[in-house]
Amino acid sequence: MPFQDFDTITLGHGGGGKLTQKLLEKGVFSLLNNDWLNSQGDAANLFLNGEYAFSTDSFVVSPIIFPGGTIGDLAVNGTINDLAVSGAAPIYLSLSFILEEGLPMNQFWEILVSIRDACIRTGVKVVTGDTKVVEKGKGDKIFINTTGIGKIHPKARLSMKNIRSGDKILLSGAPARHGVTIMSKRQGLEFETTLTSDTRPLHEICQQLLDEFGNSVRFMRDPTRGGVATVLHDVVRQTGLGIEIHENSLPLENEVAGACEMLGLDPLFVANEGLFVCIVNHEISENCLRTLHSWENGSQASIIGEIVDEHPGGVLLHSKIGGKRMLPQASGELLPRIC
Amino acid sequence: MPFQDFDTITLGHGGGGKLTQKLLEKGVFSLLNNDWLNSQGDAANLFLNGEYAFSTDSFVVSPIIFPGGTIGDLAVNGTINDLAVSGAAPIYLSLSFILEEGLPMNQFWEILVSIRDACIRTGVKVVTGDTKVVEKGKGDKIFINTTGIGKIHPKARLSMKNIRSGDKILLSGAPARHGVTIMSKRQGLEFETTLTSDTRPLHEICQQLLDEFGNSVRFMRDPTRGGVATVLHDVVRQTGLGIEIHENSLPLENEVAGACEMLGLDPLFVANEGLFVCIVNHEISENCLRTLHSWENGSQASIIGEIVDEHPGGVLLHSKIGGKRMLPQASGELLPRIC
Repeated sequence: MPFQDFDTITLGHGGGGKLTQKLLEKGVFSLLNNDWLNSQGDAANLFLNGEYAFSTDSFVVSPIIFPGGTIGDLAVNGTINDLAVSGAAPIYLSLSFILEEGLPMNQFWEILVSIRDACIRTGVKVVTGDTKVVEKGKGDKIFINTTGIGKIHPKARLSMKNIRSGDKILLSGAPARHGVTIMSKRQGLEFETTLTSDTRPLHEICQQLLDEFGNSVRFMRDPTRGGVATVLHDVVRQTGLGIEIHENSLPLENEVAGACEMLGLDPLFVANEGLFVCIVNHEISENCLRTLHSWENGSQASIIGEIVDEHPGGVLLHSKIGGKRMLPQASGELLPRIC
Repeated sequence: MPFQDFDTITLGHGGGGKLTQKLLEKGVFSLLNNDWLNSQGDAANLFLNGEYAFSTDSFVVSPIIFPGGTIGDLAVNGTINDLAVSGAAPIYLSLSFILEEGLPMNQFWEILVSIRDACIRTGVKVVTGDTKVVEKGKGDKIFINTTGIGKIHPKARLSMKNIRSGDKILLSGAPARHGVTIMSKRQGLEFETTLTSDTRPLHEICQQLLDEFGNSVRFMRDPTRGGVATVLHDVVRQTGLGIEIHENSLPLENEVAGACEMLGLDPLFVANEGLFVCIVNHEISENCLRTLHSWENGSQASIIGEIVDEHPGGVLLHSKIGGKRMLPQASGELLPRIC
């Protein structure tokens, strides 16, 4: 860690003067080293040509370091995934910190390193940024905004408007890992599990699906806050169609299921950070599932349901024991500050 | 205000479920109404073609509502100005909120309206966004990130690398209004002055200068945190040249000067939100000044100094009474949370 002069972030690191300069040069620029950042302009100059996706997310997860990740790689992967499910290959990110006075420098460094690593893994470049510091008690260690630009796949025709009755709903893996990991850590239960967050980038598999299936892929979304159930409710609300899902087909890991019971959570409502819902023309659904299975993180991918004309605006769950119930919509805050 | 059901922001407004939906539909989408937002995707799809600037800023100003503006129009104008001084005409913004539980809804509404108005005034579109809520005591009412994309003027060749000895340094108006206004309000002195923040968009005048003077405009920057002195120090540090400025030529408003004395501030180190420093080829400096004077906010524009080969890395101030002194660099935090 290159910050020998300070143990913690101080208000001075947000002042725009010498201290800010030092923090940026020793920390951010040296790690995320590229021509755009090194030029230290007010903006990065980009050459763009064609159709692009543009997405923003502020990350306030607590704790800031958790099994499987930090708020830093979560912020990189999270915005990458919003671009990915919009059919875009992510290219550029902006990165903006709101630091609380007193944040230990070694924690900030660990987060910066995780950001650097996530950028290397994905090939995405942080090209512009900002750092602010607020007084102790006016923030919570670190909040991160990432905003991204990605090039839209030429075959992508992703829109809820394209969803039709009969379309199949695929889930790329087992749900609820991220939320359950964070909640376990908060409740001091992390030593009873080996669960880690599923934070990971999804752009490669999303691009592959578009390569192979083009506009037969109707819609994709990553079920973060509010979980899979919230994505399904968004779909029925905006399309006016209905959804049926089958509990039998829902991939669920034993450890996640156990932790959910212990924590009193329904895995369908728990946040994910490396999962996506994909709605496709039923004719290609089995091929699409095969592609997902061939993906290194897709062994548990499953067709979990279909779009129907019945019960418009509603999501019907066929339970394991043969019952049926309408899935409620998440109302208030289930798991505050999960991402 | 359309939020009859709630007096304040609750954690539930950040959960991604029904409450979040209600907050967005009644508040954000209805005010900032456009096709990108209405589609409610994870990202906005843009068609881009050519050279663009990309800039991000998180705003943490306190108080959130102040004479002349709110954190909302400050956030819109602030990112517009980072694009403007980079030679770009701003087009698209993302908008991300971190709200503290308990934020009064009427304050949030006032801020949203100021954002809407700033967008209308500038023609810039908010096309994607995010909302998070943190527990009471873990934030401070509202933090806003805006990230923008703007099209770079075809004649723009702005870079510190182009700055040459002999170039003239122009200031677009009188400094320190924003910082002094915020500090007066914080210290409860606002009733003794009629000062208002200078928050305003700068893209039109910056584009006009590029239209008229092309690459004779070497470099522009808006002196926010750390004020004019910090921009000048950035220039000498990055170019290895020197700067001389003339106190006699510095436009200073009486009321600002008085407030600075009362607050113990040096106006050269105080933040501005509607001002820019412009470094130009000396041959066009008088013409450039005329253009600034013809701008509705430029009546006090002035040539404040020049680039020199002497004292490399230093900024020399010629004082009113004929003395000389090196201008120090701002070190720690002068005015925390000024923007």
